[in-house]
Amino acid sequence: MSLKLLADIRVHGGQLRRYEHASSSTKTNMVFAVFLPSSTQAKPAPVLYWLSGLTCTDENFSQKAGAFALAEELGLAIVMPDTSPRGLALPGEDDSYDFGSGAGFYVNATQSPWLDHYHMYDYVNKELPELIEAHLPVTDQRSISGHSMGGHGALISALKQPGRFASVSAMAPISSPSGCPWGEKAFSGYLGEDANAWAPWDANELVQANMAAGIEPQALLVCQGDADPFYSEQLRPEVFSATCAQLGYPLDYRCREDYDHSYYYISSFIGEHIRYHAQHLQLI
Amino acid sequence: MSLKLLADIRVHGGQLRRYEHASSSTKTNMVFAVFLPSSTQAKPAPVLYWLSGLTCTDENFSQKAGAFALAEELGLAIVMPDTSPRGLALPGEDDSYDFGSGAGFYVNATQSPWLDHYHMYDYVNKELPELIEAHLPVTDQRSISGHSMGGHGALISALKQPGRFASVSAMAPISSPSGCPWGEKAFSGYLGEDANAWAPWDANELVQANMAAGIEPQALLVCQGDADPFYSEQLRPEVFSATCAQLGYPLDYRCREDYDHSYYYISSFIGEHIRYHAQHLQLI
Repeated sequence: MSLKLLADIRVHGGQLRRYEHASSSTKTNMVFAVFLPSSTQAKPAPVLYWLSGLTCTDENFSQKAGAFALAEELGLAIVMPDTSPRGLALPGEDDSYDFGSGAGFYVNATQSPWLDHYHMYDYVNKELPELIEAHLPVTDQRSISGHSMGGHGALISALKQPGRFASVSAMAPISSPSGCPWGEKAFSGYLGEDANAWAPWDANELVQANMAAGIEPQALLVCQGDADPFYSEQLRPEVFSATCAQLGYPLDYRCREDYDHSYYYISSFIGEHIRYHAQHLQLI
Repeated sequence: MSLKLLADIRVHGGQLRRYEHASSSTKTNMVFAVFLPSSTQAKPAPVLYWLSGLTCTDENFSQKAGAFALAEELGLAIVMPDTSPRGLALPGEDDSYDFGSGAGFYVNATQSPWLDHYHMYDYVNKELPELIEAHLPVTDQRSISGHSMGGHGALISALKQPGRFASVSAMAPISSPSGCPWGEKAFSGYLGEDANAWAPWDANELVQANMAAGIEPQALLVCQGDADPFYSEQLRPEVFSATCAQLGYPLDYRCREDYDHSYYYISSFIGEHIRYHAQHLQLI
């Protein structure tokens, strides 16, 4: 496996690099970005995986989140994958902002024509960490976070792999996707019409399944702006909060007055999330 | 004069607002953005004017500079004008990235067809401050900064109006525009082929004119990445530095190793510039 360096940019004393590589999970070339703090010149850093939302590429978080000053200060690497395979010429791939390109939903598709390529769960949880840990100055200590569709991705990644991440958080996540229009469209397209196939990819269902199976709960940090235009129809944080409350699952839910769904919201609170992960990764 | 509110976004505890208004300087509608720290709910704040570079709108700095956390902390308002009039259907207006739309160069054009609208110097230095100081919770204490074409704009705005700004700084400015391709194209188009008409809009010439006229010098803070791809041909900081050194003009020039021309560079050092202006505005 070889990594092709696309860009190497000095920022806040560290390096932002963009790489392209042939992916076995998606059977096409993928691009990802990584921020390496300057401390990695002396010793490898633990990694925060950041999963982005609908329409994003690997670049949105880099350009708009304002996260790198604190990551440099704390010695935290940040990996930013793309949100889907791209340019495959699959029918319907580029027809809408919430399905296909830019909208992989971090699942492993089982339905034609997506099943050969749209394996973003395997990509971000297996292939990409293996690649990064083999080629870049990082440790195998990992935390995960994300926004909106990426918040959903972070939650299911942690809930499906107990013990894998030192910590998990999500900003304005689609936390109960089986019951919202974005989730229904994505899951029926990638996973089929049988809703039984959706539960293993739905954080609200996974919390219940994990508790029923006696799996040790992991603390979840979730925040949400109350002026978010997607709050009621798509994100529905009350559903997830109620499930966690009912089961005694440890959810730290923080509602932010007057904040919307944009990167202005992310930039306002990313520092809080980074400090949270840095504590669990024993950087502070 | 009325301001039409286009957006009002909570960010880092303050408010980012975008306004549209009919402009007398440019004889068309203009859009600008302003960050108001939460302290303005109790008392007006001094203002940093940020002038953006080629191709930018009022939004680039807001989205990518990562400046608002510190502005909120210090109680500093930031005004972000657009970089030109737009949508006038002038011949050639949208033909290139470095002339016309997105490339007003902060001059008052004298040449047809630009002279009726491309008065960005008057817009950012007269009309916009009057408008903002009349309608928003800000004081008449002002500092100015900018990047690339906007760094040129900041330098000439301060040099042409001694005593107006509490402080002035520039990041990777076009500091000797009469002698570089970007400047030659803009000045010949907006100001005509006679280079005598260019000197009043060229920081390198204005420093010399001000010193010859016995005008009290004002300290200039200028920084520049040494991996900037426009360093040698367009920005030529050595020319401006040499002029200032020769005349004893107080220039604090800071070269940044391995940094490029992008917003990653701006975001890495905007905090230093904001603190510099906040000191001169007596916020710290």
